[in-house]
Amino acid sequence: MTAPESQHPVLGVMHAHRSIRRFTADVVPDLDIQRAVEAAQCAATSSWIQAYSLLQVTEHETRTQLVELVGGQPQVARAGAFFVVLADTRRHRLLAERAGAPYANNLEVFLLATVDASLFAQNLALAFESLGYGICYIGGLRNELPTVDRLLRLPHGVFPLFGMAVGSAAEDPGIRPRLPSDAVWFRDRYPDDEVMFEAIERHDVEARAYYTERGAPGRDWSGGTWRKFRAPSRTDLAEYFSSKGASFE
Amino acid sequence: MTAPESQHPVLGVMHAHRSIRRFTADVVPDLDIQRAVEAAQCAATSSWIQAYSLLQVTEHETRTQLVELVGGQPQVARAGAFFVVLADTRRHRLLAERAGAPYANNLEVFLLATVDASLFAQNLALAFESLGYGICYIGGLRNELPTVDRLLRLPHGVFPLFGMAVGSAAEDPGIRPRLPSDAVWFRDRYPDDEVMFEAIERHDVEARAYYTERGAPGRDWSGGTWRKFRAPSRTDLAEYFSSKGASFE
Repeated sequence: MTAPESQHPVLGVMHAHRSIRRFTADVVPDLDIQRAVEAAQCAATSSWIQAYSLLQVTEHETRTQLVELVGGQPQVARAGAFFVVLADTRRHRLLAERAGAPYANNLEVFLLATVDASLFAQNLALAFESLGYGICYIGGLRNELPTVDRLLRLPHGVFPLFGMAVGSAAEDPGIRPRLPSDAVWFRDRYPDDEVMFEAIERHDVEARAYYTERGAPGRDWSGGTWRKFRAPSRTDLAEYFSSKGASFE
Repeated sequence: MTAPESQHPVLGVMHAHRSIRRFTADVVPDLDIQRAVEAAQCAATSSWIQAYSLLQVTEHETRTQLVELVGGQPQVARAGAFFVVLADTRRHRLLAERAGAPYANNLEVFLLATVDASLFAQNLALAFESLGYGICYIGGLRNELPTVDRLLRLPHGVFPLFGMAVGSAAEDPGIRPRLPSDAVWFRDRYPDDEVMFEAIERHDVEARAYYTERGAPGRDWSGGTWRKFRAPSRTDLAEYFSSKGASFE
């Protein structure tokens, strides 16, 4: 194990990450949002296509409705700011249409936009954290996307991926351990199963200690993980994204 | 426009990003890779699933073959280190199999892994940059994925997304401008087309200046962008990823 990197200005911010779900009532000033957005935009983008947008939801009534739509997460209404990260192909489509050119659509295009938007989002999250805010990704945004889509009046060619709540932390949760680095970083060959299981067992030792400390002894990472994939979730995504112009061919 | 943030330890590193394609012969020490990987792992991960892995390619012969497979990018062989970022569902599948539990697979699962891997990758890129290295994402890794797959002997359940070349920069390229922040950050409502076209026009002014300075007057962002989508590219992705266990249903 290396040191926790608390002395390094960038790695230290990364290592300090945990999801914040309770926030003070302080709003996030527009100037800080602008600083974070402009820094986030500096992330790499495939062939300079910049296939992302960020929809900030400020209307109280809309944010209140989103709380339930994402699975009952009050921070969506209470955080200093709430955003929806969009994989955005709309600008490209508008430009093709204006030029009278074909727009060739397939899985590669969806993947380009999803990766571009995710790189932007992680820079955004880290930018906010470096400015002293707490953040929480809201994957639950995908729970009921057709309803979210109508609520946010999203146009064609735009694919909402997840939400992000940002604000001043009103809690100080612990940091969850991660898989040992040798379980995710390999040289030249993906490891055999028994090697991977051994690394997962080391992770479970840390996970059990993490859970025990939080009053949930007996839980571990591997058990929690296979249970997440027992039943299908968000089964309407392909139909919804296709209706907005995505192709998975 | 805000200041370039050069005084801010994190935003400054973000703003300094540009793709580096020429590297010195210096290797990247394992200790620096480990520091970057461990910091990258601190990125948010959906429900703690950690659906990513990083395959470092060190074998000279393999890296030389990859240069052509990704479209003729010599930095894949010459950079101090070369990595393939994997959206990785294999650990989850192994755990489900061991538990005798079903593994429910659909587009949501592919999306979870793709986003998780991309957040990890952007932290990784920024971590390397903060340690003084240059980086370049290699989307061309998806040019001939079935061949890359065989070359790297990737197992089932693992989806290669892109490569990343890392090393000591042997060039000092300029920074490409980004869309104005009001073209990507909106409040409550996605902008109407004319508003978006106006923002794109402001971006094109900067893009033309960028190209003119580099001896390519007349080029702009919008023209380059719609041309990228005229013809389909990487049309075998759905078949390839499906063959490795992905579902797009």
